[in-house]
Amino acid sequence: MYRLHIANKNYSSWSLRPWLLMSELAIPFEERLTPFDADANWASFRAFSPTGQVPCLIDGELAVWDSLAIVEYLAEHHPGVWPAAADARAWARSACAEMHSGFRALRDECPMNCGLRVRLTTPSEPLRHDLARLEELWAQGLETFGGPFLAGGTFTAVDAFFAPVAFRVQGFDLPLGAATRGYVERLLALPGTQAWYRAALAEPWRDEPHERETLAAGERLVDHRDASPA
Amino acid sequence: MYRLHIANKNYSSWSLRPWLLMSELAIPFEERLTPFDADANWASFRAFSPTGQVPCLIDGELAVWDSLAIVEYLAEHHPGVWPAAADARAWARSACAEMHSGFRALRDECPMNCGLRVRLTTPSEPLRHDLARLEELWAQGLETFGGPFLAGGTFTAVDAFFAPVAFRVQGFDLPLGAATRGYVERLLALPGTQAWYRAALAEPWRDEPHERETLAAGERLVDHRDASPA
Repeated sequence: MYRLHIANKNYSSWSLRPWLLMSELAIPFEERLTPFDADANWASFRAFSPTGQVPCLIDGELAVWDSLAIVEYLAEHHPGVWPAAADARAWARSACAEMHSGFRALRDECPMNCGLRVRLTTPSEPLRHDLARLEELWAQGLETFGGPFLAGGTFTAVDAFFAPVAFRVQGFDLPLGAATRGYVERLLALPGTQAWYRAALAEPWRDEPHERETLAAGERLVDHRDASPA
Repeated sequence: MYRLHIANKNYSSWSLRPWLLMSELAIPFEERLTPFDADANWASFRAFSPTGQVPCLIDGELAVWDSLAIVEYLAEHHPGVWPAAADARAWARSACAEMHSGFRALRDECPMNCGLRVRLTTPSEPLRHDLARLEELWAQGLETFGGPFLAGGTFTAVDAFFAPVAFRVQGFDLPLGAATRGYVERLLALPGTQAWYRAALAEPWRDEPHERETLAAGERLVDHRDASPA
C-alpha cells in the first residue's frame, strides 16, 4: 500500500493536495504524519523525504517527493486523477503548474492555518494581483468545462491543488466573486476536506513560525482550535 | 504546427525548458519571441498567454501556459519526453517539480543572463543550501540511472528543466563537484543549448531590471554580448 508522509493538517498546504486527491478518489494509503518542529524539521524529515519536505509518497522502494510529481505518478496507475477530455486535461495541468510555481503573494501573505480566522489588513499590490488572477482562472475553468468542479463534472487533481486556497479564502475572508465563492464552498464541503479540517482543529501542536506568519497578515478574530479538545 | 511563445533567450529561463526539449527531440514548432519590456510586458504578453508569462504553447485553439504543463502535454503526443522506465520517470518528475517550485535562492540570487560572467560575492545561506541540494540531486540521478543524462542514457525533460541552471553555473561560476560539473558541460554542449546561447548573445535588447538583478549578485567580469553583433 502507498505510504503518504505529511505534516500538520492545520498548516501543511502542500500535504493537503495529494491527501485530498487520494481520499476523494478512494485510493488506499497509509498516512504518516510528522508534526513541524522548528529546530529538528529539515533533518528529521530527511529520514523519509529526499528534500526534507512534505508531502512524500512511498511506493515500495520508490520515493516520489513532490505534490505534482505524486499526482502524475498516481495518474499512471489510477483513473480519474486528470479529466478524461484532452483539452480539460491540458487546462488542468496548466492551472496546477501555475499554482505550483506561482501565486507567491497569496502563499506568502496568507498562509494556510485551517483553524484561525484573521481580518486581513490592506492587501498588498501583489496579493491583489494574485486574487484577480485566481478569480479569472477559476471562472474560466468553471465556464469552459461547465462545473461544478474546475475542469468539469468530477473532482480531479486540479481541485485538490486549489483546496489549500479554499482554506486561505475561509481563513482570511478573501474577497471573491459569487461564482468563485460558490466553488470555494463546494471544495470546503467535500467529505475529504471536512475530515482534514476536523483533524486539523484537533491537533495539539502550535508551531510558532506558522502562527507568526499568519498573524502578520492581520488581526486575530477567532481560533476554532480553542473549542477543540487538544 | 505548435507555436511556442518565448521571451529573450538571454534572460528567459522558463522559456528555455520547452524550447530545448522540443529542439533536442526534433518536435517541430514555430518560435514566437516577444522581448521583455518593463512597462508593457504583462499587458502585451496577455495577448498570447493567459498568465502574461512565458512560455506558452499554442496547439490549434488550445493554450498550454506553463513549462511543466507543456512537458506533460508533449509527453502525451511524442515519445522520449520522459524516461521509459517507471522508476526513472517518477524520479525525473519529482526533480522537475522540485525545480519548478523550489530552489528559490538560486533563482532569485543567480538569475539566468546567458552572456554575462559575474564573480559571485559571498553566497547567502539559502543559496548554499540550494547548491548542496542541487549537487546531491544531480549526483543521485547520475549514479542511480547511470548517466550521462540525469535520468539515464537519453536527454529527457528533466535535463531540459535543469538547462537554465547550467547557464547560471556558467555565468556565476558556481562551486560544484567534478561529476556534476561534467554534467553541466554536457548540457552546455548540446546542439540545442549551443543554438540558444548563440542567439542569446546576438540579441540587441538589454532589459534593465534583469541586468540589475544579475549584477546585484556580484562583480561584472565579462559580457560576451559585447563581442556579438548587436
